[in-house]
Amino acid sequence: MPLRAALRRVTAEPVRAPHPLPGFARSTVDGYAVRAADTYGASEGLPGYLTVTGAVRMGAAPDVTVTAGSAVSMPTGGAIPPGADAVVMIEYTAEAMPGTIEVVRPVAPGEGVVRADEDAAEGQQIIPNGCVLRPQDLGMLAAAGVTSVRVHARPVVTIFSTGDEVVPPDTQVLSPGQVRDATASALAALVADAGGEPVHGGIVSDDPGALEKALRTALPVSDVIVISAGSSVGTRDETANAVAALGPPGVWCHGLAIKPGKPTLLAECGTGPGRAGTAAFGVPVIGLPGNPRSALVVFRLIGMPLIRLVGGCAAPPPEPSTRATLSRDLASATGRLDVVQVKVSDGVATPLFGVSALLSVLTEADGYIMIPEEATGLDAGTEVEVTLYA
Amino acid sequence: MPLRAALRRVTAEPVRAPHPLPGFARSTVDGYAVRAADTYGASEGLPGYLTVTGAVRMGAAPDVTVTAGSAVSMPTGGAIPPGADAVVMIEYTAEAMPGTIEVVRPVAPGEGVVRADEDAAEGQQIIPNGCVLRPQDLGMLAAAGVTSVRVHARPVVTIFSTGDEVVPPDTQVLSPGQVRDATASALAALVADAGGEPVHGGIVSDDPGALEKALRTALPVSDVIVISAGSSVGTRDETANAVAALGPPGVWCHGLAIKPGKPTLLAECGTGPGRAGTAAFGVPVIGLPGNPRSALVVFRLIGMPLIRLVGGCAAPPPEPSTRATLSRDLASATGRLDVVQVKVSDGVATPLFGVSALLSVLTEADGYIMIPEEATGLDAGTEVEVTLYA
Repeated sequence: MPLRAALRRVTAEPVRAPHPLPGFARSTVDGYAVRAADTYGASEGLPGYLTVTGAVRMGAAPDVTVTAGSAVSMPTGGAIPPGADAVVMIEYTAEAMPGTIEVVRPVAPGEGVVRADEDAAEGQQIIPNGCVLRPQDLGMLAAAGVTSVRVHARPVVTIFSTGDEVVPPDTQVLSPGQVRDATASALAALVADAGGEPVHGGIVSDDPGALEKALRTALPVSDVIVISAGSSVGTRDETANAVAALGPPGVWCHGLAIKPGKPTLLAECGTGPGRAGTAAFGVPVIGLPGNPRSALVVFRLIGMPLIRLVGGCAAPPPEPSTRATLSRDLASATGRLDVVQVKVSDGVATPLFGVSALLSVLTEADGYIMIPEEATGLDAGTEVEVTLYA
Repeated sequence: MPLRAALRRVTAEPVRAPHPLPGFARSTVDGYAVRAADTYGASEGLPGYLTVTGAVRMGAAPDVTVTAGSAVSMPTGGAIPPGADAVVMIEYTAEAMPGTIEVVRPVAPGEGVVRADEDAAEGQQIIPNGCVLRPQDLGMLAAAGVTSVRVHARPVVTIFSTGDEVVPPDTQVLSPGQVRDATASALAALVADAGGEPVHGGIVSDDPGALEKALRTALPVSDVIVISAGSSVGTRDETANAVAALGPPGVWCHGLAIKPGKPTLLAECGTGPGRAGTAAFGVPVIGLPGNPRSALVVFRLIGMPLIRLVGGCAAPPPEPSTRATLSRDLASATGRLDVVQVKVSDGVATPLFGVSALLSVLTEADGYIMIPEEATGLDAGTEVEVTLYA
């Protein structure tokens, strides 16, 4: 991948410095390259005197050597001339007479100098494998002359919606009982945020066999499959049936101790050569609850980390979060993780309520808090960690 | 912008619900639509008995009315039939005989029901102006049938590099004294992260007049200009001279009380019709320090918020952060904001040191802490807020 398209892509191998960086000893200040020993004991009262024998130009090799008693004028970033082991800042020098400077402070060897291999030694790893490339990483690669980088392919994530009530978002006039497919659009965005490539598989009817057929078509071209399930009992069962029909290993679990998000299904389908022809495992399938809010909450907690993992990411990038004080008591059942949407203002987290079917709770929220399984609730005034929506 | 390309784009107008959402009263559970009054007093010991007069199908209009003493079978998400004002969960019912159910718990009016306008009333604002669109916002727009949205154009940010020592990243063999342009690649990525469209203006030589000429060419086609300055005295002055030559309003400030990042220049150039032909202000110009690390630190703190502002963003999205305990004392001068790169592990923030010229300090860092102007330093053991690199 060329560097300018590699932001947030995941490296597929470590990158090593092809040569030492910066590659030559550089000055970190404007001043004079000297032998440090020539400045020892120098002070305002008793300056050292050095003869200026030349000047280093930016971007050019030094054409002069520093010898005992001599100094060479240096710009910041210039190459240290042979013989010098330190640079005196211009602020600690003065021109005593033309061609001679006085130095009023001593410098130690190495002072004012970046070593030729201080940013990286030759062959040193500069970017690890499985790294989500950040802006500064691209800068480091550019500095090393690495203008393209091997990255993992984006995992292809096929998104299906099910439910006879679900119609495409561009349906202008709804018939009674119909709702537009909100979840697929939001899921596609979450997939992109996790580094995946979302593919809209479309809306699958509740007819028996329709979902199984759709899954069979998607399996060979998907790294992950996500099913935004219908919310009624019948359609929930249909997802499990369709996955089971595709053969072992099948359903890993059906039902999670999360609220909202309980009717989640996790499965693995079609063991054998995957999309890349090398996978030893099946394609992960996530059956999400039918309510849009439940689906998006579960997908953040389980789907996005899964996509990052499939995409080769060694450690997920950090999520924005903030500490806040809870504005009111929150009840919770033990043995269940509760995810509560909140607004945050002036350090106070105010829970937002409403049934799982409401999307407006999510659009109004700044983030969410989690009440752990072992807790029976949280008291007003508790300091909570809010994961913020970026 | 079509919805599927609108993630993280900034809305240029508020979006209102074209009709009530979800648009019809829906059941939140599987069960029976009833008149709530018919269930009052029902208990395990003394169930209420109701006649099942029909069933609602998903995605279809109800073809039956609920009357006193009757119940209609409901799937989750189904449309509430006329006459009903609540839904009894199936768990609290049992089939007493074919066509008759017993109800063992009372329901209040509205229980088990999402009102027709509970997610949004007709004309209600569902997405504000100046909003950076998040995944759930796209879901809400899809639910409302809004499949394209007016967004601000991405600000075009032209990036120049200066300095006779700077050569393009694809230079395989460096001559002595040359360094590859690392900063431009990293800046382009930060511009993209802030919602801007980076344009590489290339490397401008230190020849007098060269930068002024480059700026004149870039002004009419840029919303923001960023100059990654040479680090020597001469090239620092050249940026100020070039900006001044373009006429008032010119340089706003030259030098910031930030470490690293002191030699930063902020200016406004070429007042008059901007790129869009409507701007009353000039083009903001940021002259960054020559050291890559200094440049990237300052650009995060000043450049990215500026680009968000120019891009119409009303409030910047939250940045990842974490609290950690400082591993060692940190000195700082008062009257200066210090930005210190840190690694974070097990809740401990370990400062990374090294001169501003080193990029490896930034690639090794997990984030940074800021020591405020009024502080003289931070003690080991202090709890610090680390802004994390995502």
